[in-house]
Amino acid sequence: MFQKVLIANRGEVAVRIIRACKEMGVRTVAVYSTADEESLHATLADEAYCIGGPRASESYLNIDAILTVAIASGASAVHPGYGFLSENVEFARECREHGLVFIGPSPEVMQRMGDKDEARRTARAAGVPIVPGCDLLDSPEQAEDQARKIGCPVLVKARAGGGGRGIRKVERPEDAAVAFESASAEAKAAFGDGACYMEKFVSPAHHVEVQVIGDRSGHVMSLGERECSVQRKNQKLLEESPSPCPALTDDVRLRMEKCARDLARSVGYEGLGTIEFLLDDAGSFYFMEMNTRLQVEHPVTEFVTGHDLVKWQLRVAAGMPLPDGVDAAPVSGHAIECRINAETPDFRPSCGTITMLHVPNGPWVRFDSALYVGSLVSPFYDSMLGKLVVYSPTREEAIRKMRSALGELVVDGVESNADLQLDVLANDEFLSGNYHTNLMEHLYE
Amino acid sequence: MFQKVLIANRGEVAVRIIRACKEMGVRTVAVYSTADEESLHATLADEAYCIGGPRASESYLNIDAILTVAIASGASAVHPGYGFLSENVEFARECREHGLVFIGPSPEVMQRMGDKDEARRTARAAGVPIVPGCDLLDSPEQAEDQARKIGCPVLVKARAGGGGRGIRKVERPEDAAVAFESASAEAKAAFGDGACYMEKFVSPAHHVEVQVIGDRSGHVMSLGERECSVQRKNQKLLEESPSPCPALTDDVRLRMEKCARDLARSVGYEGLGTIEFLLDDAGSFYFMEMNTRLQVEHPVTEFVTGHDLVKWQLRVAAGMPLPDGVDAAPVSGHAIECRINAETPDFRPSCGTITMLHVPNGPWVRFDSALYVGSLVSPFYDSMLGKLVVYSPTREEAIRKMRSALGELVVDGVESNADLQLDVLANDEFLSGNYHTNLMEHLYE
Repeated sequence: MFQKVLIANRGEVAVRIIRACKEMGVRTVAVYSTADEESLHATLADEAYCIGGPRASESYLNIDAILTVAIASGASAVHPGYGFLSENVEFARECREHGLVFIGPSPEVMQRMGDKDEARRTARAAGVPIVPGCDLLDSPEQAEDQARKIGCPVLVKARAGGGGRGIRKVERPEDAAVAFESASAEAKAAFGDGACYMEKFVSPAHHVEVQVIGDRSGHVMSLGERECSVQRKNQKLLEESPSPCPALTDDVRLRMEKCARDLARSVGYEGLGTIEFLLDDAGSFYFMEMNTRLQVEHPVTEFVTGHDLVKWQLRVAAGMPLPDGVDAAPVSGHAIECRINAETPDFRPSCGTITMLHVPNGPWVRFDSALYVGSLVSPFYDSMLGKLVVYSPTREEAIRKMRSALGELVVDGVESNADLQLDVLANDEFLSGNYHTNLMEHLYE
Repeated sequence: MFQKVLIANRGEVAVRIIRACKEMGVRTVAVYSTADEESLHATLADEAYCIGGPRASESYLNIDAILTVAIASGASAVHPGYGFLSENVEFARECREHGLVFIGPSPEVMQRMGDKDEARRTARAAGVPIVPGCDLLDSPEQAEDQARKIGCPVLVKARAGGGGRGIRKVERPEDAAVAFESASAEAKAAFGDGACYMEKFVSPAHHVEVQVIGDRSGHVMSLGERECSVQRKNQKLLEESPSPCPALTDDVRLRMEKCARDLARSVGYEGLGTIEFLLDDAGSFYFMEMNTRLQVEHPVTEFVTGHDLVKWQLRVAAGMPLPDGVDAAPVSGHAIECRINAETPDFRPSCGTITMLHVPNGPWVRFDSALYVGSLVSPFYDSMLGKLVVYSPTREEAIRKMRSALGELVVDGVESNADLQLDVLANDEFLSGNYHTNLMEHLYE
């Protein structure tokens, strides 16, 4: 195992990783921005270094500063968390070049799966169903042709897209050319790459993702799936495992998990990763994309499988093998996660100092967070205050448990979306288990 | 299920029960003393009533006041928690007489198992090994005779004893008469009953207890055992499940669990209970006593069995059956609980207002507590601030997890025994798993 790991992140995920390291006897190095001087992750780590100003580009995206600290502190590995540099191929490559283990897949695999068009072709080659569509578009005219061929509605998607950018929905073939030009320009500006492809717009659909992990020997294990259809503007709000979706029959579930393992195995995937699928009501599923990192919603998988995913990341990165002969981790019970965001009822970020905090606790209740009384919720970073996660034998009990826990949570000093989460948990469509990615639109009708 | 339950307790256990009720859709009624006006249990319950002054006799032991609130609030059941009235036969009887379900066994069974001499004879009749000894002593002379017959060292024990009172260790037969008179006088004064019996003093011994639960149909299930040998002056400090004691082989464990079920079944036990055994290094075990209530250390059993014991208490009290055909709940992984007490390094209670609180969290870490920033740790009640509980696949990992969690815990405003717990977790005897009830004495040698 590593002697010392640098955590190239902040907030709850940095705290989560520091705790896992401490439990494994691994020393931790935190980096922080000038806005995070008093932050919990900097306090909990064995060592902590300020790497720059409050803007992410000055600090948490500052590859040179982070590598300098890693080398100077004698860390042998870097955990990137999620967001920031976690899917940055250059960072992973620079770590390797400086003799540091990047805790994640190789830069080559990250690049291959990070290019959405190449990922799509890789999935097809591995026998994984992909959304009907076409490869890279050459021209606006071709976009219109393809839209007719595939059948509207379609999506024009930049291969380098992310966070909702470089994506356009097309309702009529005659709008495809303009959509292509606009998506391409946006992606060119944001990611320096304007290449786009086209996919059928599958709707109504469920967003279901399979957790996988691969070790150095080529063994890939799946760890159940997560239902992530409660989204607002492509941002997940609530996740659960297993998925309650009736279209996800045992047979479909087994096939989806096998597809995820096959895809990961086909690229020699080492480390933790998530393979996202769209699932329609008929039980057909299509590969959407792969996230080559720890996900925000990993705790629901930890509850239902009993595996500590961050510890597994460290183990496989250190060359240790996965449990022998296990292809699919057994799943039992039901877990739900609510993301608690600092935001106003009209979804604007809410900043301030935490003046009071009461966190629910007790059996099978978990709150991953970097909050404390006096901590600052700054405008520089994403608005997630923490993740409330519960586990129960059944979905019905888990929902009641989450309602009770949300009712107990007190975070004063900023506004939060706890009431919105309670609305979701009381919604008939959600309760039925058969809800789609448009659930949040329905909630406001 | 009950519509409304009164919780006749305070502190962390009241909060624990309120949370379970909320998750089951059961309304809750709290009672509180004038010292507990701002306490968490009173805040979290649906209704809360002040029942008297700060002394326990004025409030949490005030049967009339509690019954008045139960009846006036329309509660249909009373949960006594642990301590206070939880093993008070009169209270259980009065609840029944007023049409309230007492969440626990019947007053008759409580009485029978509460009388230590009768419990001992009941165990013997059920085929459960008891410590070699004799029934009630008639005279000081008989005490000396029996001490010779049994062989010193022996213990003189009052049948009504508890909390270390009415108990004397006898090293030489000629001291037995005086010990008998002294134990008897103490028990007479404290419990109004001077009757005493005598037992062989088993040492070195392990304190191992089996969790059982019985339903109305006579089905009794065991839920693994707990190692409770880390004690100071008969007060448990740290508990773990399963017991790491090498003398507790698979065969001994199965026999001990069967004895516990047999004993509970033989008295028609309904509800949750704990059967305490002394285990010697040769693997012989002896019935010690039965606790007819929820134990402080129940969370370690919840972690290793996956059963919510408070919810099961409510279910069986409402007449619901235990899982069909399960005699012994399967156990997996390893759980440890550290009691966090407000005390000085020389074990005097530490009182004050909590000025800062940081509680560890994350996967498989639980902190059951009624603390918040601003809450008052008063001199009127026991000094337990909370219970830190962790779970891991192995004992070794659980110990590391507990160390990490204790290292993160911050409770400012009072002194705590967190450092003492870290000393236990670093002790070679503890780490070996083969430790006895005298461990804490060794720790200070």
